[in-house]
Amino acid sequence: MSKMNAFYAQSGGVTAVINATACAVIETARKNKHRISNVYAGHNGIIGALTEDMIDTNKESAATIAALRHTPGGAFGSARYKLKGIEENRAQYERLIKVFKAHDIGYFFYNGGNDSMDTAHKVSLFSKRMGFPVTCLGIPKTVDNDLPVTDNCPGFGSVAKYVAVSTREAALDVISMAETSTKVFIFEVMGRHAGWIAAAGGLAGNRPGDAPHIILFPEIPFRKAAFLKRVRECVKSYSYCVIVVSEGARYANGKFLAEAGTTDAFGHAQLGGVAAVVANMVRESLGFKYHYAIADYLQRSARHIASAVDVEQAYAVGKAAVKFALAGKTAVMPIIKRVSDNPYRWRIDHTPLSRIANKEKKVPRRFISSDGFSITPACRRYLAPLIRGEDYPPYINGLPKYVSLKNVRVAKKLKTNFVV
Amino acid sequence: MSKMNAFYAQSGGVTAVINATACAVIETARKNKHRISNVYAGHNGIIGALTEDMIDTNKESAATIAALRHTPGGAFGSARYKLKGIEENRAQYERLIKVFKAHDIGYFFYNGGNDSMDTAHKVSLFSKRMGFPVTCLGIPKTVDNDLPVTDNCPGFGSVAKYVAVSTREAALDVISMAETSTKVFIFEVMGRHAGWIAAAGGLAGNRPGDAPHIILFPEIPFRKAAFLKRVRECVKSYSYCVIVVSEGARYANGKFLAEAGTTDAFGHAQLGGVAAVVANMVRESLGFKYHYAIADYLQRSARHIASAVDVEQAYAVGKAAVKFALAGKTAVMPIIKRVSDNPYRWRIDHTPLSRIANKEKKVPRRFISSDGFSITPACRRYLAPLIRGEDYPPYINGLPKYVSLKNVRVAKKLKTNFVV
Repeated sequence: MSKMNAFYAQSGGVTAVINATACAVIETARKNKHRISNVYAGHNGIIGALTEDMIDTNKESAATIAALRHTPGGAFGSARYKLKGIEENRAQYERLIKVFKAHDIGYFFYNGGNDSMDTAHKVSLFSKRMGFPVTCLGIPKTVDNDLPVTDNCPGFGSVAKYVAVSTREAALDVISMAETSTKVFIFEVMGRHAGWIAAAGGLAGNRPGDAPHIILFPEIPFRKAAFLKRVRECVKSYSYCVIVVSEGARYANGKFLAEAGTTDAFGHAQLGGVAAVVANMVRESLGFKYHYAIADYLQRSARHIASAVDVEQAYAVGKAAVKFALAGKTAVMPIIKRVSDNPYRWRIDHTPLSRIANKEKKVPRRFISSDGFSITPACRRYLAPLIRGEDYPPYINGLPKYVSLKNVRVAKKLKTNFVV
Repeated sequence: MSKMNAFYAQSGGVTAVINATACAVIETARKNKHRISNVYAGHNGIIGALTEDMIDTNKESAATIAALRHTPGGAFGSARYKLKGIEENRAQYERLIKVFKAHDIGYFFYNGGNDSMDTAHKVSLFSKRMGFPVTCLGIPKTVDNDLPVTDNCPGFGSVAKYVAVSTREAALDVISMAETSTKVFIFEVMGRHAGWIAAAGGLAGNRPGDAPHIILFPEIPFRKAAFLKRVRECVKSYSYCVIVVSEGARYANGKFLAEAGTTDAFGHAQLGGVAAVVANMVRESLGFKYHYAIADYLQRSARHIASAVDVEQAYAVGKAAVKFALAGKTAVMPIIKRVSDNPYRWRIDHTPLSRIANKEKKVPRRFISSDGFSITPACRRYLAPLIRGEDYPPYINGLPKYVSLKNVRVAKKLKTNFVV
């Protein structure tokens, strides 16, 4: 078989462990130099392929590539950029294949969520049609844990651990002072459409009465009266109430709570996001002193508290993708299959990209308590193994030692530019 | 010398390491059983003394007390409750001494900030006047690092480490996607009057161009035009801009930015806090896509990323307080004296409570760059040692194993109740 180059791109929101996947792709390719000459990484994801702006990973030392395993963010730049249907966007697909052909790229590894799996699938089809068949592998990545088929997604376990640990810690703070100060604490986490991250907050508590007392899922229509009743009951019973709220919490009519906020004097929507909206409800209806935290990017970049299981799986899917590609598989994505809950055992399998593309896995109803405010034992069994183990980065002078790449560009070969 | 009991109380906002100080007080007292029979801890701080609601720490095992060293929050409950002047509140002081007398309490350890040092000082004076002299020791605690005389305060190093690590991590996330997505990231941290915590964000970067690009200190009057100009320049030069803003950032007229927000349709002040206000300015004037995080209680409870130096110092001040008390010192507070910056060396000394009470140490002008937006090398030299070393708590099933006390109450001896 002939030697070819590979193209690797990161797509969508980055995670604490997407670089661990990049590390695996590059390290595994390097072990197969007779088949893969070099891994070119897209600068800013797929845009780097379209604009012929690629990074020569052979210019990075083995130690630098190894350090990607413990470095959060997207080392080559990521982008939210979706290639649309082949018919409407034929020029983009043609350009992509032209760049791949010019640089002798026979393997395409696309590390992202369901949109990216759709793109990888289309590139696979189109490349064949163009007479330059490219081996296309999707590699799962998303903090939202919303990809179907795979048991879970790399990136999720670490954000889940961050949210569970932070909820447990903040609860200890709140309970210390609840009798004379803040009684209600609201913690806003990510998850626009699926409540997996909010659900992970539920791991913080073990016993009845433990925080979090309320979880607001996007999957459960928000009922203000029931919510406020519950807050009041918690404060009465436990002296405090910790709420984990998904940014995607919404009313029965589908309207996000965050959108339903009041507007300012100029008619602008209030900026505070869902935590501020929920806090405002508590203040107006119950009068309790409250505080709120918004984790935002902190949660998905918190490599310092990454789950060891997550790091291992992020590496495993990257390694498997290269192995599957070398074994001649195309248009597939490595998936994580759970073998058993306790002891937690898993293995890597694969599934056709067509089964992943554009589908979302939400938190099933059986994982949410009947009142809609907490997780069930089944959900806990599912989530618990994903946050196991600590995988601390190295520190220097009290700060994590994260790596920066040289990111040397591959010389352009095409005479034409492409504007995205 | 006669054997007496000690009373220990936590005061004000709790920290990731205040329980390490409690651990030290109790462990050191237990090593001196011939002098201190028992440490009674105030349930909800000083309120526990006034209401005769005290916790019998002798009921806790050595292992439980040892685990306080790695448990955040306030194990006995804390309170924001300030005893006012002796003349206006004579009844409170009399009650306190009555409770101390009834329970044979000869030592008072008050673990808090400058208000608490004022209280400890007054109790010392008043107890003598009442003919029941109590040995009163203040023990420093505050995430704000605003106590005078001591080089730094236990509690600060850990929040500083959390803020520096989180800023570094979030910056890696933002830079990954800045060219096609979020360009401005705003991180709101604590520090209503002093900008020490915001300053610690400055440790995240090492080289010119590294995040954070802008720090907004309470000490520097906010100038909107200069701020927006700087944001624009950063985005132009680095493609992104990371801003660490103190909750206490304010205009030249003293008005907090957080108060200056727009009001909603009902005339309520906008709830978003300073991050939302700053984000709104960026949006309205520059149009950049932004995100913001609000660390709130997460920052002061993040024991999982505590500074080893901070934990050690929190323990050291607790231990020293007991030793000073047993050596006959009263109305003093242990302080941390810096012996050298590099290698960092420190020792414990003490200072009269009157020198601490009601004074605030702000970030000096020489620690802030001339443009007001970053820290100077002198500030970095001061801050850097305080975040050194990791002191990870033990984990079980992926979550930190924090201890809960039994908190068995001391039987009441007084017939009268006291309403605070």
